[in-house]
Amino acid sequence: MNRGMKHFITVSDYSIEQLDRMIDVAGKLKSKKTELSLKGKTLILLFLNPSLRTRTSFELAMKQLGGWVVTLNAGGDTWKLETEEGMVMDGTSVEHIKDAAKVLGRYADAVGIRAFAKGENWEKDKKDPVIDVFIRYAGVPVINMESSLYHPNQALADIMTIQEKYGKDLKGLPVTITWANHVNPLPMAVPNSILLACSIFGMDIRFVCPAKYDLDTCIVDRAQDLSVISGGKITVTDNISEGFKGSKVVYAKSWGSLQFYGKKKEEQKYRKNLVHWIVDDGKMKLTDNAIFMHCLPVRRGLVVSDSVIDSSSSFVYDEAENRLHAQKSVLYHILGV
Amino acid sequence: MNRGMKHFITVSDYSIEQLDRMIDVAGKLKSKKTELSLKGKTLILLFLNPSLRTRTSFELAMKQLGGWVVTLNAGGDTWKLETEEGMVMDGTSVEHIKDAAKVLGRYADAVGIRAFAKGENWEKDKKDPVIDVFIRYAGVPVINMESSLYHPNQALADIMTIQEKYGKDLKGLPVTITWANHVNPLPMAVPNSILLACSIFGMDIRFVCPAKYDLDTCIVDRAQDLSVISGGKITVTDNISEGFKGSKVVYAKSWGSLQFYGKKKEEQKYRKNLVHWIVDDGKMKLTDNAIFMHCLPVRRGLVVSDSVIDSSSSFVYDEAENRLHAQKSVLYHILGV
Amino acid sequence: MNRGMKHFITVSDYSIEQLDRMIDVAGKLKSKKTELSLKGKTLILLFLNPSLRTRTSFELAMKQLGGWVVTLNAGGDTWKLETEEGMVMDGTSVEHIKDAAKVLGRYADAVGIRAFAKGENWEKDKKDPVIDVFIRYAGVPVINMESSLYHPNQALADIMTIQEKYGKDLKGLPVTITWANHVNPLPMAVPNSILLACSIFGMDIRFVCPAKYDLDTCIVDRAQDLSVISGGKITVTDNISEGFKGSKVVYAKSWGSLQFYGKKKEEQKYRKNLVHWIVDDGKMKLTDNAIFMHCLPVRRGLVVSDSVIDSSSSFVYDEAENRLHAQKSVLYHILGV
Repeated sequence: MNRGMKHFITVSDYSIEQLDRMIDVAGKLKSKKTELSLKGKTLILLFLNPSLRTRTSFELAMKQLGGWVVTLNAGGDTWKLETEEGMVMDGTSVEHIKDAAKVLGRYADAVGIRAFAKGENWEKDKKDPVIDVFIRYAGVPVINMESSLYHPNQALADIMTIQEKYGKDLKGLPVTITWANHVNPLPMAVPNSILLACSIFGMDIRFVCPAKYDLDTCIVDRAQDLSVISGGKITVTDNISEGFKGSKVVYAKSWGSLQFYGKKKEEQKYRKNLVHWIVDDGKMKLTDNAIFMHCLPVRRGLVVSDSVIDSSSSFVYDEAENRLHAQKSVLYHILGV
Repeated sequence: MNRGMKHFITVSDYSIEQLDRMIDVAGKLKSKKTELSLKGKTLILLFLNPSLRTRTSFELAMKQLGGWVVTLNAGGDTWKLETEEGMVMDGTSVEHIKDAAKVLGRYADAVGIRAFAKGENWEKDKKDPVIDVFIRYAGVPVINMESSLYHPNQALADIMTIQEKYGKDLKGLPVTITWANHVNPLPMAVPNSILLACSIFGMDIRFVCPAKYDLDTCIVDRAQDLSVISGGKITVTDNISEGFKGSKVVYAKSWGSLQFYGKKKEEQKYRKNLVHWIVDDGKMKLTDNAIFMHCLPVRRGLVVSDSVIDSSSSFVYDEAENRLHAQKSVLYHILGV
Repeated sequence: MNRGMKHFITVSDYSIEQLDRMIDVAGKLKSKKTELSLKGKTLILLFLNPSLRTRTSFELAMKQLGGWVVTLNAGGDTWKLETEEGMVMDGTSVEHIKDAAKVLGRYADAVGIRAFAKGENWEKDKKDPVIDVFIRYAGVPVINMESSLYHPNQALADIMTIQEKYGKDLKGLPVTITWANHVNPLPMAVPNSILLACSIFGMDIRFVCPAKYDLDTCIVDRAQDLSVISGGKITVTDNISEGFKGSKVVYAKSWGSLQFYGKKKEEQKYRKNLVHWIVDDGKMKLTDNAIFMHCLPVRRGLVVSDSVIDSSSSFVYDEAENRLHAQKSVLYHILGV
C-alpha cells in the first residue's frame, strides 16, 4: 500500500531547500512559465470544519492541473464521524473515522483533511487524532488542510508572499508575529506553522503576545531548534513597541490561550484587558514600512483596523491567491511523476 | 484589474439588440448548431441562499463549455459573511463579504452571486449590498444569480421561451404578469426582472396585483421608460378579469408587499382575503390560449392549480431548461474571447 | 423523451446473465483492461439523505468516465421538497418533487436518487414514492442510490466482491445474512437487495434474524421465486449457531422491525434483549472461514467487534472500493452507446 508515500503535514518535515523548490514551482505556475499535469489522478478533500479559501483553492488547484477532485463535508452531506478508538458506537456518530479513512483511500490517490482542534482538551487535540488516523489507515498520501497543530499550506503560501516582496533570501529579515484580540479562542495551527516556517528560513522573529498566550512548548522548542540551524533568531515579548519596532513584516493572528483551554468564559473575562491588541496605524508606524499579513478570515475592528487591512501595505489577498499556486506545487510534489 | 469588465446584473443594462443576440446564441447552443468553449476559464458560484435550477444550470453551463467551476454555500460549508461596512466584527459573522469578494476575485475569471433580500429593511435591501460589494471589490465580472432587485438570467430564459412560442418579434404581444398567493412574503427580483424584460421587448403588459403589491417605483419608472422607447405598453390593474383577458402569456409569481416589509404577521392577516389569487382554469379561460409561465419553485395549490401547471399550456419546464442555454450564452458573452 | 430507457432500480429487474455481464465490465475497469467513455453525458445526483461512499463513488465514476456530474443536497443547498401528490403546498416545503424531477430531467442524461424510507408509515414508504416520481416524470433513466426498498448498486458491488473471493459460479455457496444490533431502526434497503441478489445467484442463503425482524413479504416472496429459478435455497432462522455454521460469507446488517415501524421507543425496549446480536470472533468461528461483509457505515461495538472488522477476513473495504467500479459499469450500461 505504501508507495514511497509523501504526506504533507507540517512545513517542519521539510528542509529550507525543499520548501524553496516547492515555492519556485509555485512561482513558475503563477507566472505561467511552466505547466504541470495531474491528469488521471484523484484527490478527495474532507472538511470537518468550514472553509472558503482552502476549499476553493484546493478544488481549483486539482482541476486546473487536470485531475479529479471530490469535496466532502463531514457530518453535513456525509455521516457524522467518530474519532475515539476502541469504543462502542452507541452515541450519535454513525461512522468511525478509521473506516472513512480506509474507504476514501481506496478511491483517491491522495486525501486532504481539515480537522480543527475541538477546544476542550489540549492533550487530546495536540495528538491531531484525525490526521493521525488518516496517515495510519488511508494508505495514500495525506495533505493537511489545517489540523490542531499545523496549517502547512498556509505557511507555504505566506513564505512565498514574503519572498515576492523581499526576495528569496529571508535570513535575518525582521518579522513580527503578533497575537490579536478576538471574541473567540481560535485554533493555534496558523501561528504554529508560521513560527516554524519563519524559523526554517532564518528570519529575525519577534513573537509578540500577552501573558498566557504562549504556544505549546513542543512547537516553541522545535522552532528554536530550526532557528539555530538556519542562523535565525526568536525573541518572545509581551511588549508591543519592542515587538513591532523596525519590522518588515507584521503577521497578525488571534488564538486561544492554552491556560484557559476549554474555559471560554474565563478567557473572555481575561481578554477584556486585551482590546488594545489590534493591529492599527499606530502599531504599523513603529515598523520599517512593514507589510501586513493575515491568513483570513479576519475580524475587522478586532484583529486589524480597516485602515491597515485596506492599505497598500496589506498583502492579505496575495497570501490568499498564493494558496492556489503553492498548493498546485504541493499536489504535484506528492502526486506528480 | 479592470479588463473591460462586463458584469451581468440586470437585463435593463442591455438593449433589445444585445439581448436578442444573446438569445440567438442560446438557441444555437440548444439546437447544437454552434459550439463554444470557455476552456481555461474559472467561474466561482457563491450562494447565500438555496438553489436548485440556478445551481445546476450554472454548474453545467460552465462544465459543458469546458471551463472550471467551484460552488460555495456561504455560512454552510464556508464562513458566515458580514455585509455591514466599517463595523467592529464582534458578533457571529466570521468574514467580511468585502474580503471574500477580493479573495474570490483572485481565484476566478468571473463570480456568480446569489443574495436575496433579507426582508427586514427595504431601504437597505434595495441597495443590493452584496452584489454591490462584489462589483466594487472582486476585480472580475460579476454575474447576478438573483439579488434583492434582479434575476436577469431568469428573465433572459423567460424571453427566450416566449420567443420559441411566438417568434422573435414580441412587440405588442399581450402578456399578463400576475401576483399570486403564498404563505410567505417572497422576494421581488423575479417580477422586477420580467417586467423590465417585457418592457424592453415592447410587449403589451398587463401587470395584475392586489392593492399594496406595487413594485418599487424605481423599477416601475424604469419599466415605463423602457416601454416608451420600445413602443410597448404597461397597464397596472387589480382587476383580474381585465388583466387576464386576451393574453397570450400568463406569468405568475408571488412576492411580498413593500407596505408590509418586515411585518410578516400583518401581511399574513391581510392575505387572508387574497386566497383567490391563484392561477386556475377559470382565469386561464379568460386568456387567448395563453401559455402559463413561472420561474419555479412554485407552491402548487396556492400560486397555481395542478390542472394549469400540469396542462399542455404550461411552459415552466421549458423556462427551466432554457436557463442552461441562456446562461451558457451569458457566460460566453462575459468570458469568451 | 423515452429513448429505450433503462432505469437501475433493483437487481431483481435483471437476470443473472445481465448482472454477470455488468460485473465483468466492472472487473475489467478495475484491472484497467478496458476503458470506457461517457464524454458529453451529464449525470445529476440528488441526495435526500447523507452519503459518503455513494456520493464519492458516483461522482468519481462519472468524472473518471469523462462525463459531467452535478451533486445536489435536497433541503440543504436546494429547496425543501414536497412528496405528497395533489395537496395545497401551504406548509414548509418549497418545491414539489414532481417539478424537481421534470426540471432535472431537462438538464441530465440520467438522474441518481437517494431517498431513504421515512420510518413513519411502511405502507407509504414501501411504494418508494420519490423514486417512483422520478421514473414517471424525469423523462430520463433513473439510478437508485438507495430507496426505501432497494440499494442495487451496493448489492452489485457485493456480488462482485464475493466473486473476487470465490469465483464466478456462486451456486450453492453458503452465505449468512445476519441481522445485527444498533441504537436506531435502520432502513431495509440493504438486506432486501443482498437477499434478492444472493437468490438470483443461487446461493445457499441462511437468513438469520431475531423474531419480529422479518423483511417485507413482497421481498421474501420474490427472493423465494428467484431462488427456485436459480436452484438456490433460503433458510430463515433465529438460531445463530445454525445460521452461521459452515458459512463462507457473513453479511451483517442492522435494520428496523416492521412490527415496530414508527414506534422507535418500543423497539428500543425490545432490543434490550438483542445486544448479543453482534458479529464477533465467537460467531465467526462457527463458519467455514467466512469472509465478513458490511455495506458501511457500521457501528463498531454494536454491529461488529473491532476484532472481526479489522481482521484479514474483513472484506468491507473491498465492497466499498468495488462500488466505484460497479457503478461505472452501471452508468455505461445505462448511458453508453
